[in-house]
Amino acid sequence: MSGGAPEHGGHGAHLCMPEDARKRAARRLKIARGHLDSIVSMLEAPDAYCVDVLRQIKAVQGALSGAGEVVLRGHLEAHVATAHERGDTVEIVEELMEALKYT
Amino acid sequence: MSGGAPEHGGHGAHLCMPEDARKRAARRLKIARGHLDSIVSMLEAPDAYCVDVLRQIKAVQGALSGAGEVVLRGHLEAHVATAHERGDTVEIVEELMEALKYT
Amino acid sequence: MSGGAPEHGGHGAHLCMPEDARKRAARRLKIARGHLDSIVSMLEAPDAYCVDVLRQIKAVQGALSGAGEVVLRGHLEAHVATAHERGDTVEIVEELMEALKYT
Amino acid sequence: MSGGAPEHGGHGAHLCMPEDARKRAARRLKIARGHLDSIVSMLEAPDAYCVDVLRQIKAVQGALSGAGEVVLRGHLEAHVATAHERGDTVEIVEELMEALKYT
Repeated sequence: MSGGAPEHGGHGAHLCMPEDARKRAARRLKIARGHLDSIVSMLEAPDAYCVDVLRQIKAVQGALSGAGEVVLRGHLEAHVATAHERGDTVEIVEELMEALKYT
Repeated sequence: MSGGAPEHGGHGAHLCMPEDARKRAARRLKIARGHLDSIVSMLEAPDAYCVDVLRQIKAVQGALSGAGEVVLRGHLEAHVATAHERGDTVEIVEELMEALKYT
Repeated sequence: MSGGAPEHGGHGAHLCMPEDARKRAARRLKIARGHLDSIVSMLEAPDAYCVDVLRQIKAVQGALSGAGEVVLRGHLEAHVATAHERGDTVEIVEELMEALKYT
Repeated sequence: MSGGAPEHGGHGAHLCMPEDARKRAARRLKIARGHLDSIVSMLEAPDAYCVDVLRQIKAVQGALSGAGEVVLRGHLEAHVATAHERGDTVEIVEELMEALKYT
């Protein structure tokens, strides 16, 4: 799992996000950020139409969900699937349930 | 309603987003944009922790929902509530149902 | 719009759900109810598998969303689109935003 | 983990839902079932009001989410947290991501 860095996120072992997931999530968030910029510009035009803006906001939310899935999958594989061996199943599951509920 | 600008969003009259809603939505999206920046920076650190990132992504999605609600309220008040008088109830409702479904 | 029945839902005029929408929504909810019954039976078996149950619960939520869309569309067409003429745009929009937010 | 019952849900070992989670989820679903009954009756009345029905549908969806959380928590604790030791992390995570995405 991961080395002896200082406790983080309430776990004995330091649990870092898998590098691949970290980079893929960052790429997706940068795309979402660019999309968000375009909506802000859209809103500068007096003739912006509500439903066009609504659609674009939903599209960015979809992109963020995609990034969240990359993070969640990495977490399930690297940290949740190994929790029983580490002995912190209850904390890991409680923490994840809280984060998932935050929708 | 609003005057004879070219047809937009498939409606006879040109329907522009109410200025107040446009500005308030833009303000919220700029805040969400800044928050997204901070997550992208967070992901540059090798010891980023998955659940922290998940929470931040969900928070930005919440901020986007808030901006979407400002847009939706403005649209309902300015354009949907006047649709029967304009005679485009079916188009306006169809368009909105599609946009709301896009979650 | 609708006749002088007693005030309902905080509106001067009595606003009833369009009959067609009422019947279609009821049909969908009865199907969802049957599906819910099958999940309850599924859970009586000791070898029920979590992810199968999760999928079925999500499917019923999807069916409820479908019924909700029938109700929402009927409401937008019959009551929101006529609000400006009735003079209760603010109340109708406020009420709907609150109901939509209830997700 | 669990004994040698026939393969289920694509896993070597037969993975059954923890009994406690099974019973708590069933109790919640029965309550949601009763609530759904009341909405079906509500829709039999010609003066049913759309937004009242919308609210009730959302409340049942919320109750189903609560039941889903009981199932998910039980699955994370009993089956996902032990996946690495069983050697089926990729299948368990893939299956769960698919089920969570089904919203």
